[in-house]
Amino acid sequence: MSEKAFQDYYPDQMSYCYGCGRLNEYGLQIKSFWEGDETVCIFQPRSYHIAVPGYVYGGLLASLIDCHGTGTAAAAAYRAEGRSMDSEPPLRFLTASLHVDYLKPTPLGVPLEVRGNVQEVKGRKVMITASIIADGEITVRGEVVAVQVPEVMVEQLIHKTDKPACI
Amino acid sequence: MSEKAFQDYYPDQMSYCYGCGRLNEYGLQIKSFWEGDETVCIFQPRSYHIAVPGYVYGGLLASLIDCHGTGTAAAAAYRAEGRSMDSEPPLRFLTASLHVDYLKPTPLGVPLEVRGNVQEVKGRKVMITASIIADGEITVRGEVVAVQVPEVMVEQLIHKTDKPACI
Repeated sequence: MSEKAFQDYYPDQMSYCYGCGRLNEYGLQIKSFWEGDETVCIFQPRSYHIAVPGYVYGGLLASLIDCHGTGTAAAAAYRAEGRSMDSEPPLRFLTASLHVDYLKPTPLGVPLEVRGNVQEVKGRKVMITASIIADGEITVRGEVVAVQVPEVMVEQLIHKTDKPACI
Repeated sequence: MSEKAFQDYYPDQMSYCYGCGRLNEYGLQIKSFWEGDETVCIFQPRSYHIAVPGYVYGGLLASLIDCHGTGTAAAAAYRAEGRSMDSEPPLRFLTASLHVDYLKPTPLGVPLEVRGNVQEVKGRKVMITASIIADGEITVRGEVVAVQVPEVMVEQLIHKTDKPACI
C-alpha cells in the first residue's frame, strides 16, 4: 500500500464529502489505496450502522462503493496521464450512476474490505467495479460510473476560502 | 397522507435500521407514506451530508432510495394481500439490488421529496422505481429490487429481547 490515501490528495475545498472527505468530522473519512492494479479501502462500520441487529446497513455499503469508486476513478485518471496525485491540475470525479447487488447479509463487527477495479477510462468517464469482502466472503458487488468534474467547477471550488457551515 | 408512516409499523426488533429505524437514534429515521398510488418521503439532509459544499452527498441519496424502496415494498405487499400494516404476520423486505442515476447535483438546504412507484409485486419480490425532487426538479432516479425477509428470520428477530449494543 502507498503511504498516503487517494483522498489525502484532494484539495481542501473538495475534502468535505460525507463519505470520503478528510475534513468532514461527521463523515466516514474512508481511505483508498492502490494495491497493484486494484484499489483497496478498509472500513470498520460503527455499531449503529446496522440494517437489522448484527448486519451492516445497505446504504452504508452503497456509500463505501460510491466513494471508493470516485477515489479509484481519480487515481486511475492520474495514472492514465502518467502523473502523481499531488501534481496540477487536480482531477476530481463525481458519480453519474451507482449499482449495488447485495449478495448476502454483511456481518457487523469485522473490518470490511472494499476492492475496486478500473474497467475503462474513456475520456472524462471512468467505469469501476467493486466488491465488499467481510470475513473472507464477498457479500456485495457494485459498479460506479464516475465523471470528471469540469475544471472550471474545480477552480471555483478550490478558490473558495470559507468553510461549509457545518464543519 | 396517512397518519402513521410505514416504518412506524415495523416490529421493534426490525426498527434499528440506520436509514429508517425509528429506534436507531443515530440514524436517518426516514418516514414514508402513501399518496394515492405513489409513496412519498420528505427528508431534510443535515448540514454535513455534503458531497461538495452546497450539494447533497450521493451516498445519502442512495440511502434514501434504498430505505424508501424497502418501505414501499412492504406497504405494497400488505396492499396486495388486502390487509393493513398492523396486521399479522409482519412483512419486511431487504434490498437485493439498488441502482441510482445522479441526473444533476442535489442542492443542500431544501427538503427533499423521495417519490416511489411500485412497478411489480411478483411473489416475494417487489420492484420499485423512485425519484428525488429538490426545489421542484428531479435530481436523482433510482430502482430497488426488494425481497421479502423469510418468515423464520422475522420470527427469530422479533423474539430477541436484547437491544443492539449501540443503541
